[in-house]
Amino acid sequence: MAVKPVNLAEKFTLFDDHWSPRVVTELNDYQVKLARIEGEFVWHSHEDTDELFLCLEGQLIIELRDETIELAAGELVVIPRGTEHKPSAHSECKILLLEPRGVVNTGEVSNELTAAQDVWV
Amino acid sequence: MAVKPVNLAEKFTLFDDHWSPRVVTELNDYQVKLARIEGEFVWHSHEDTDELFLCLEGQLIIELRDETIELAAGELVVIPRGTEHKPSAHSECKILLLEPRGVVNTGEVSNELTAAQDVWV
Repeated sequence: MAVKPVNLAEKFTLFDDHWSPRVVTELNDYQVKLARIEGEFVWHSHEDTDELFLCLEGQLIIELRDETIELAAGELVVIPRGTEHKPSAHSECKILLLEPRGVVNTGEVSNELTAAQDVWV
Repeated sequence: MAVKPVNLAEKFTLFDDHWSPRVVTELNDYQVKLARIEGEFVWHSHEDTDELFLCLEGQLIIELRDETIELAAGELVVIPRGTEHKPSAHSECKILLLEPRGVVNTGEVSNELTAAQDVWV
């Protein structure tokens, strides 16, 4: 694997759809993904892994069953495995995700928001 | 584990020493760390893991044996396992690191730059 720097802003110029994470690099068996989000996602959980969200631009809202978390740019949060969560954003928000290779974005749910795996940018 | 957002800028106000990574959260068996760096680090490698560097502020230089990588704010790179590297910064630089729990900052080297493990902020 070439040691190639990734410029996050440049990567975001290469796609503009929402809720469709793009892989930008891998670390061992983990993938770093970028996504544009807007509107509401679905309630879901990941039974086997924690998931990290880093807000890069805009405001990321993550509803949990008992609280709502709001992240501004420069803030991150780890959603523990098995925790139901529903991401949303009132206006477009750019996020970085970190999770093991193979994690499905909608967790145990499968619907029209379920994104293809391993789409690199 | 509480689902607690981490504000990166706030965390940086809580320490000012160089080359001494602070853990801010964990994701499965991985740790997200913040560090201030300035000057030159030591050549080292990590035999068992890749290591992710994200430059948050300033300019991060990572020398490899056959090339030199420069990262500005908003750029990241993954150094593959076993790859000798020497981080440095001409002036203070703030970085985010991602690696498995238990990784020693100086890799196989042990000297005055070897930082304590598992120091949270």
